Amino acid sequence: MTDLLKTLRETLLMGPGPSMVSPAVYRAIAQPTIGHLDPAFIGLMDAVQEDLRSLLNTGNALTLPISGTGSAGMETCFVNLLEQGDRVMILSNGVFGTRMADVAGRLGAEVESMEFEWGTPVDPQLVASHLRENQYDLIAVVHAETSTGVLNPVEEIGKLVRENGALLLVDSVTGLGGMPVHLDQWGVDAFYSGTQKCLSCPPGLSPVSFSARAAEKIQSRKSRVPNWYLDLNLICGYWAGEAGAKNSKRAYHHTAPINMNYALYAALREVLIEGTDAVFDRHLAAHRQLVEGLEDRGLSMLVKSPHRLPMLNAVKVPQGVDEAAVRSKLLDEHAIEIGAGLGPLAGKIWRIGLMGHTARPANVERLLTALDQVI
Amino acid sequence: MTDLLKTLRETLLMGPGPSMVSPAVYRAIAQPTIGHLDPAFIGLMDAVQEDLRSLLNTGNALTLPISGTGSAGMETCFVNLLEQGDRVMILSNGVFGTRMADVAGRLGAEVESMEFEWGTPVDPQLVASHLRENQYDLIAVVHAETSTGVLNPVEEIGKLVRENGALLLVDSVTGLGGMPVHLDQWGVDAFYSGTQKCLSCPPGLSPVSFSARAAEKIQSRKSRVPNWYLDLNLICGYWAGEAGAKNSKRAYHHTAPINMNYALYAALREVLIEGTDAVFDRHLAAHRQLVEGLEDRGLSMLVKSPHRLPMLNAVKVPQGVDEAAVRSKLLDEHAIEIGAGLGPLAGKIWRIGLMGHTARPANVERLLTALDQVI
Repeated sequence: MTDLLKTLRETLLMGPGPSMVSPAVYRAIAQPTIGHLDPAFIGLMDAVQEDLRSLLNTGNALTLPISGTGSAGMETCFVNLLEQGDRVMILSNGVFGTRMADVAGRLGAEVESMEFEWGTPVDPQLVASHLRENQYDLIAVVHAETSTGVLNPVEEIGKLVRENGALLLVDSVTGLGGMPVHLDQWGVDAFYSGTQKCLSCPPGLSPVSFSARAAEKIQSRKSRVPNWYLDLNLICGYWAGEAGAKNSKRAYHHTAPINMNYALYAALREVLIEGTDAVFDRHLAAHRQLVEGLEDRGLSMLVKSPHRLPMLNAVKVPQGVDEAAVRSKLLDEHAIEIGAGLGPLAGKIWRIGLMGHTARPANVERLLTALDQVI
Repeated sequence: MTDLLKTLRETLLMGPGPSMVSPAVYRAIAQPTIGHLDPAFIGLMDAVQEDLRSLLNTGNALTLPISGTGSAGMETCFVNLLEQGDRVMILSNGVFGTRMADVAGRLGAEVESMEFEWGTPVDPQLVASHLRENQYDLIAVVHAETSTGVLNPVEEIGKLVRENGALLLVDSVTGLGGMPVHLDQWGVDAFYSGTQKCLSCPPGLSPVSFSARAAEKIQSRKSRVPNWYLDLNLICGYWAGEAGAKNSKRAYHHTAPINMNYALYAALREVLIEGTDAVFDRHLAAHRQLVEGLEDRGLSMLVKSPHRLPMLNAVKVPQGVDEAAVRSKLLDEHAIEIGAGLGPLAGKIWRIGLMGHTARPANVERLLTALDQVI
């Protein structure tokens, strides 16, 4: 039988994630596995938590990577914060807002959504007037909508949510590592992300962070968290965040994905050593280069300029072009992956990622040259 | 700041997992990340599923790795199979039986446990007489109890469960890859394992498998699975098992942990190429060598001979010996990790793992020599 790993082809990952993994991260992930209670591993866990706090601009004790992909982080936030009958408002303008409503509904919350057109941002004016009349336990929004390339105004929403008294939950699976995230300044109570976007790391872990208010809610639940694997009261006994940790000794909960944590450690170090300002500038520069190149070729962007994410670019498919054929040719003939549209945007857009290690001038150039040949 | 990865020391992992990772698996995990919808990755997913079916001796279509560690597999089985008020019986003789009862209870099931002394197996006679009087929707047992080193008689229990009409759920996190597992012959309806034990792969994925009966129960639930991330009806749209898959096209659910799947692929190939009989014999030989060496030194085993697992050896701590000091010295002075006892066995036993790549004569010899110096 063929060894399929020998047939893998290095691909330029310019879709909605995973993105290009940095060489240092590949070296890290293949380091020797050690035990999950080995003091050396616990030192590495501490360092990962510290670096995450730096990147998130937060003092939140309860900051750690969940042992699953970004969607496990979403599940973690809702399942720990919600109890039966809690009132939840989802500010939704894409796939990941829709997914949040699905996750919360399954947990027995009373879920409402305010829907905004896909490709446009959440409108804080409309949110403000709705929140004046309605109270919620939790309000959730996606910072960087991977399905549309829209940046939502989290800081403005944060002020409104604080006045409402609700907890604010923010998804920044795609934003983290590619643009500023300021949890404390923005008033974010619960946050999740993923490793495979702007952190230039393979998928497999989901960084999460919770404010003291959120941690208190988790500790004072009336019912047990209906999910043993993701119960932060238990997980904190191992990661030593604040929620349920009664002492500083690490208690075995589940066996942490050791090598994925090596990879995340290396990925965070790289971002912080390059410097967040430099990293964010690199993303913006690649984005500008891409948009200019696309517009030169007569292509146009789905999202209006002030609301565009640098790392996820939704490009309208020109009339008469077979969008799937373009993606297949890019992959087959040029070893470049870009993404398709989802939901109502299926067939109408391509999604071009400029995330983490991918966000470099040479990669943008290579894609533009390839597009000239396949469209 | 020090690069902590450069300070990692190669350790001989002889605890309850993770175990030694094979060089081929380290090479695999660092292969270039590709997209989760790339046809090359889908080909690899198919191969992983096929190899899992071989190792599990099953024709179950619904066989795939869950994107989390072994405990996520436990959560997956219960959350998909149970609905509010379902009657569950846990046959429990260790930490992982106790954990199963906790997981099931959080999901609103009516959970009963039959408790057997830790260090002894589940007694099928007692189970038979109890099941004659009581009916259950689901009966669960741990095949290889990692906390005690006991092998439970799954095949005998399977016959009793089938007569009862319940579904049979089996945990073989520690057994898979180190001893025979025959899902179809044993009448197992739901199964989960982990990568970091006898598969010689880092932790991070949990192979699961479901019989047609179990898949039917999942498809015909009255309520939605209260866990979006682990809902097999959705996951099967991506992995193309049978449960909820309505067509053969792969639908994005969550971004699979690409590189962990490379690692699992390589790990399964290694076991199947060495040959399962040879692999199981190697585990048994290492176990016999270890027991003999320990007994020569006046140490004794917790579990009676016919019920011992080859890959997890519970050794009684002699009176007057500081068990934690022995473990620390082994780690610090000899770079060997062994495990502590859990729950009622804390302080009373050591747990010595002979899992996967660890189960080799030279490793046993190295441990015995080190023990001579530290006890």
